[in-house]
Amino acid sequence: MILDYLDLLHEIVGEVTEVGSKVEKVKVGDKVGVGCLVGSCRQCDQCTNDLENYCPKVIWTYGSVYTDGTLAHGGYSNLMVVDEHFVVNWPENLPLDIGSPLLCAGITTYSPLRYFGLDKPGMNIGVVGLGGLGHVAVKFAKAFGTKVTVISTSINKKKEAIEKLGADSFLVSCDPEEMQASAGTLDGIINTVSATHPLVPLISLLKPHGKMVLVGAPAQPFELPVFPLMAGRKIIAGSGVGGMKETQEMIDFAAKHNILPDVEIIPIDYINTAIDRLTKSDIKYRFVIDIANSLKPE
Amino acid sequence: MILDYLDLLHEIVGEVTEVGSKVEKVKVGDKVGVGCLVGSCRQCDQCTNDLENYCPKVIWTYGSVYTDGTLAHGGYSNLMVVDEHFVVNWPENLPLDIGSPLLCAGITTYSPLRYFGLDKPGMNIGVVGLGGLGHVAVKFAKAFGTKVTVISTSINKKKEAIEKLGADSFLVSCDPEEMQASAGTLDGIINTVSATHPLVPLISLLKPHGKMVLVGAPAQPFELPVFPLMAGRKIIAGSGVGGMKETQEMIDFAAKHNILPDVEIIPIDYINTAIDRLTKSDIKYRFVIDIANSLKPE
Repeated sequence: MILDYLDLLHEIVGEVTEVGSKVEKVKVGDKVGVGCLVGSCRQCDQCTNDLENYCPKVIWTYGSVYTDGTLAHGGYSNLMVVDEHFVVNWPENLPLDIGSPLLCAGITTYSPLRYFGLDKPGMNIGVVGLGGLGHVAVKFAKAFGTKVTVISTSINKKKEAIEKLGADSFLVSCDPEEMQASAGTLDGIINTVSATHPLVPLISLLKPHGKMVLVGAPAQPFELPVFPLMAGRKIIAGSGVGGMKETQEMIDFAAKHNILPDVEIIPIDYINTAIDRLTKSDIKYRFVIDIANSLKPE
Repeated sequence: MILDYLDLLHEIVGEVTEVGSKVEKVKVGDKVGVGCLVGSCRQCDQCTNDLENYCPKVIWTYGSVYTDGTLAHGGYSNLMVVDEHFVVNWPENLPLDIGSPLLCAGITTYSPLRYFGLDKPGMNIGVVGLGGLGHVAVKFAKAFGTKVTVISTSINKKKEAIEKLGADSFLVSCDPEEMQASAGTLDGIINTVSATHPLVPLISLLKPHGKMVLVGAPAQPFELPVFPLMAGRKIIAGSGVGGMKETQEMIDFAAKHNILPDVEIIPIDYINTAIDRLTKSDIKYRFVIDIANSLKPE
């Protein structure tokens, strides 16, 4: 089984090695993924509307208490037992290892682009932050036919954003003149930054009735002045991953449009070095760990 | 002409005394209202979509520079000259004096209830703050067929909210147990409070995918933690009054459903006392000033 995402371990892919007698969704040998959730109540309004991720009793893949009372350890294992409902069927033409970060980074950005109607061709979409989430957001937004502006604190990311990821333009968020010149131009923003930062310059980039969706979760609260929202009937929202149905839809969409995260595949014994590099942001953009060394040439 | 709203003076009603040769919308003798705006560019995306209130060149009724270069003074006058586009035709059966606060308080609450889809019968809607805006929000929300919960810092307002305004329930926002017991019950909240206050207890009242619309504008920024938004894909939005088309629609709706603000009508020479009482919140809920003493018995 091939696993990734060093801090949470919930973008897990592998091959089915055994199935229970009542399992219908997968068979032995199938390629599958397991994302951020492995359980939910299956009965509440959220569950019955395919939004298990918002179920009050959701069981997260890493860190939640599972139905058997043990702690869920995510993908740090050669083997994993999981309810078929929380398994994603992997598309034939999507590389299993490279595609694995879609199971969190993909759905986290795909879902709000869809739900908030930021997926219409010709729209102007901003992506704040160019990391694991941001670079995938750019790829989905481009696949939807929108024009994408990457907004970052660092001019150093401009070349990468435009030449490699295909963004249409780039803004340095700490350059007031550049930001001012683009005021009122964006229909929506996916904000992937997980540290607090000034929201007003970003709100100013939105057209009236524009929407900024926060998908990073800073530990500290943001400062939110109300007038910039009122003056343009603007929206700030949060969004967290997606339900199983939408996750499958996202993976199928990625396969069809050839959307792949940029990753570096590493063997499990590289993990300490990888952690050191992560703390220095020295990775574009995700490490994928070959836990079982199954990718190693024999 | 009868005017109201001591701090801004943009809920103005009166009778047409003269019209220009090209005026088609009103004739001499018609009863009309003028709300928060008296001009806009009429050409931008906002204006052509009947959202003149979000036009970057909007001319506010009070305090903006008018097209002739003078400062707009709102309704503090016996007479007012205004472009017919910014005039609201007053419904026959709506009292002119009592109804005047609808021109700001009414549209400010009606518009977000409509735009954010918080107007569906059976929905659970919260109204935070029971003042000039809040008490009208309760009346509109009830007229839409929703169940209304008033949320206030003061238990003293419970009787008024339920018995007089027809709210279905009442929550004291600083009572953690009461708030906790109602967590996840509201589809939407209209937050009318114009001072900062903790947002998290209010966000917690929302169901997943719930929306809180801020229509009061505190001078200081709110503290906005992101996790409570992400965990339920919740929305915080701002909204400011409404366009002319929707303002007319709101006034017609109010007339049809007999929605009237609670006011105290005062002569102009009572104004200093009224200001003193306003600073002590000693008014339920709006003063309406009879500027021309036209309501005085002869």
